[in-house]
Amino acid sequence: MRVNLIQLNPIVGNIEKNCDLIIRHLAASKGQLCIFPELALSGYPPEDLLFHSGIQKRISRATDILKNKTREGVSLILGTPYYEEGKIFNAALYIHDGKIESIYKKRSLPNYSVFDEKRYFSEGNEPIFINHEGVNFALLICEDFWDDNIFSKSFSEKTDCILVINGSPFDYNKIESRRVLAIKRAKECQLPVIYVNLVGGQDELIFDGSSFVLNADGEEIIKAKPFEEGSVSFEFSSQNLCKAEKRLESNNIELIYNALVLGTRDYIQKNNFSSVLLGLSGGIDSALTLAIACDAIGAEGVRAVMMPSMFTSSMSVEDAKSQADLLRVQLDVIGISDVMNTFDHTLRDVFHGYEKDVTEENIQSRIRGLILMALSNKFDSLLLTTGNKSEMAVGYSTLYGDMAGGFAPIKDCSKTLVYELARYVNSIKSIIPNRVIEREPTAELAPDQKDTDSLPPYDVLDPILELFIEHDCSVDQIEKNGFDRNTVIKVLNLVKRNEYKRRQAPPGVKITSRAFGKDWRYPITSGY
Amino acid sequence: MRVNLIQLNPIVGNIEKNCDLIIRHLAASKGQLCIFPELALSGYPPEDLLFHSGIQKRISRATDILKNKTREGVSLILGTPYYEEGKIFNAALYIHDGKIESIYKKRSLPNYSVFDEKRYFSEGNEPIFINHEGVNFALLICEDFWDDNIFSKSFSEKTDCILVINGSPFDYNKIESRRVLAIKRAKECQLPVIYVNLVGGQDELIFDGSSFVLNADGEEIIKAKPFEEGSVSFEFSSQNLCKAEKRLESNNIELIYNALVLGTRDYIQKNNFSSVLLGLSGGIDSALTLAIACDAIGAEGVRAVMMPSMFTSSMSVEDAKSQADLLRVQLDVIGISDVMNTFDHTLRDVFHGYEKDVTEENIQSRIRGLILMALSNKFDSLLLTTGNKSEMAVGYSTLYGDMAGGFAPIKDCSKTLVYELARYVNSIKSIIPNRVIEREPTAELAPDQKDTDSLPPYDVLDPILELFIEHDCSVDQIEKNGFDRNTVIKVLNLVKRNEYKRRQAPPGVKITSRAFGKDWRYPITSGY
Repeated sequence: MRVNLIQLNPIVGNIEKNCDLIIRHLAASKGQLCIFPELALSGYPPEDLLFHSGIQKRISRATDILKNKTREGVSLILGTPYYEEGKIFNAALYIHDGKIESIYKKRSLPNYSVFDEKRYFSEGNEPIFINHEGVNFALLICEDFWDDNIFSKSFSEKTDCILVINGSPFDYNKIESRRVLAIKRAKECQLPVIYVNLVGGQDELIFDGSSFVLNADGEEIIKAKPFEEGSVSFEFSSQNLCKAEKRLESNNIELIYNALVLGTRDYIQKNNFSSVLLGLSGGIDSALTLAIACDAIGAEGVRAVMMPSMFTSSMSVEDAKSQADLLRVQLDVIGISDVMNTFDHTLRDVFHGYEKDVTEENIQSRIRGLILMALSNKFDSLLLTTGNKSEMAVGYSTLYGDMAGGFAPIKDCSKTLVYELARYVNSIKSIIPNRVIEREPTAELAPDQKDTDSLPPYDVLDPILELFIEHDCSVDQIEKNGFDRNTVIKVLNLVKRNEYKRRQAPPGVKITSRAFGKDWRYPITSGY
Repeated sequence: MRVNLIQLNPIVGNIEKNCDLIIRHLAASKGQLCIFPELALSGYPPEDLLFHSGIQKRISRATDILKNKTREGVSLILGTPYYEEGKIFNAALYIHDGKIESIYKKRSLPNYSVFDEKRYFSEGNEPIFINHEGVNFALLICEDFWDDNIFSKSFSEKTDCILVINGSPFDYNKIESRRVLAIKRAKECQLPVIYVNLVGGQDELIFDGSSFVLNADGEEIIKAKPFEEGSVSFEFSSQNLCKAEKRLESNNIELIYNALVLGTRDYIQKNNFSSVLLGLSGGIDSALTLAIACDAIGAEGVRAVMMPSMFTSSMSVEDAKSQADLLRVQLDVIGISDVMNTFDHTLRDVFHGYEKDVTEENIQSRIRGLILMALSNKFDSLLLTTGNKSEMAVGYSTLYGDMAGGFAPIKDCSKTLVYELARYVNSIKSIIPNRVIEREPTAELAPDQKDTDSLPPYDVLDPILELFIEHDCSVDQIEKNGFDRNTVIKVLNLVKRNEYKRRQAPPGVKITSRAFGKDWRYPITSGY
């Protein structure tokens, strides 16, 4: 029996297009058992679209079409929402010879982290085994595989193989933690494991694919490329499943970079943009974002805008130019001093008697945001926001200024990680001028400004933020990790005080275990 | 026995302050049984703060303090998060004579609409009865009372009274639907019902209080004022509970207006602002928002800014001035033509060869947003956003322009409702010039512009939006309600296309059954 693992990249809500995509894969898979990921037909997560009667009808129509396709000698396991008696299930259908032979309903519904499955789905309550060409598969959906309680009831003596379909989002530890779990599972039940995952970007979530097959000893015998749509097929036989192949190794920085590129590309393309623009400041954040944008859609779709003021160093302008040249990206240089002066003049009366302060820095940043949005409107081009996670955490950014934009590729990357990624990019092809990487970080919104005027150095700030954001550590716990108590308190207060800014920030690619997005639900009004 | 229903207005996360607030009520309630609402000690909803070890410690400390207070002859039912063996429960503690006598754990955890309780809490699994001075109370928390399955197991022959503590947010049907349910419940078990609810604003949610007591015939004998912190006490005896009093009636528009005022006041004050500002355009949205702001914190804390351009009619400037005069609000008039011209000049080269379009309208709107944010920064004053629900739905608003601000009081009010509210405000005291109410709606961003140039009239648009947003109706269903199919499709497409704008909008007061906030979870990237 040939089994085909299909790493699908669906578009959330576009049932017809997803159905066509599935049919294309089926057409190339004659005689095979094709396994599609969790909610492949609707895309994951469909969120409140699930409540619409329209989507139910479209899913039902698409399922009928797919049923007919299986008369042509292909069978499939299809992840799809399944509506029954006013309830919605997260289901896997086994479709064979023109009929839905089995319906498995996900039993363990995650309702933590980025997941809200109990908002939408009812729980299934029984294991399902499908017998395809004499092989007895135990069917599971994602969280079922992780849930000890569910997993222990999911196979019997007659089971030949564990088959898990997934919509498992990427973070920088996820591929490894899935592998560790799957090896444990294979060994504890002495059964091979087939693991099929979605691929593609959906708002903040990136599905990395990374589908695989393990034999009963937990050895990896098939592995699909991460971050790429496609399929891998193999001959299911006990002999084959015992032969171990070498694993493809990727380092973590490379994985993260690929996640950022795919997430950015899918946001751009799935939202029907053909071009993007961004503000290029001569700093490292915009330099990295530009590199990602070019890798996502090609330099010809990318436009960079340098907007110098009286506080912008000539070094910044030179570096922006040389980066645009190296990448062959169109660069516009638009000076903003005139506009700054006119605002000064316009606000002179109302600000009379007040000193200059952060207000004027914000005006400068917002003028740039306004110009970028004007170009975005005029040229129907998506504005990419270049802010990183460190500044998003402590509010070192201007709402409607440098935070303006439709998508923020490096929103979940700490400044420390931004440096690592920039060095990685340069190790492939030297496109970011060294000076950009080596100069001291500055917002250049006031004379001789440095990030460290307002913030602890990033090698102190970033680990504190990680302990707080990703590990929910208290002040005491962070202090015990070797950080100055007052610094910790100052940093955490900044995080709390800036919730209102994050609430108005554009989405970005989630690559850590906790990003500022669906998995960060804090009140703005809070006395904590 | 005297029972005291305490409509508390806590601050989410500020356990110490909430504890003090509770103690103040206890001090005034000697000898009474004091009933506090759901999660009174933490505020509702505490969201991801619940995961922090710090909050657990603070709650435990506060509970100890409150325990000691009950040695002084007062008893209490306290809504609080309760931590036990790594789990968190939404609990009601009965504290009497220095001890926690009973712990009731909420059994029905809502995970729909604005609620995410399954993300945080574990389910309790048994009813609790407390015997206080010989009276046997069946204890319930909010959703338990609505859940037929739970309710039916919540009383016995020995029960004398149903006691429900609540964190039930307001919408324009909510007070009535609670009353209808409570009457049904009282009658079906032939028991009196004590219903205590939180009061106050928390980001988008408004808790209206509206606590009450019904006798066993479902007659209302006590009713607390909606939207006001405070307490009502009564003598618990069978005689007393049979005596029906007249209900205080409020009309719906008055309730909604009070919800908007309370929500705005609490957002301002709980976030430690002492003043607000807003753009006053001469249109009805900003006129209503100004009235709400003045009722929320007093005219002396409110500043209005009129920013005329070459497209602003003299009528708008006059009406803004007369409204500011009537309300005695400081008005700044800041012309923006110079800044508009400078931007035109700055962008001349890059826009060379392109026609004027919506870009220039957006620039105008964003210049106003920039100026308002500059005043907000300089004077540490919260910027109120003046947009309504109709424009939020169809994207008839400029991101970072008129959408800029920290809080949007009328974000959940359709344009139709805005008119009704404006007339209500004027019926109390004439503060909105009639011309503002009567003129045709216009954004005044281009010559002779009218809202109807881009949108259907509001008496068509608003009911379509309500059917779609609040009732999840399909195109077919809306058409059956008497609307032109093409108009419906056009409107719904606008709603879908503008998800990205709403994602970056400030929070506002939820007053309908579905606002654009926690209860509107749609993907931005969507092919639906």
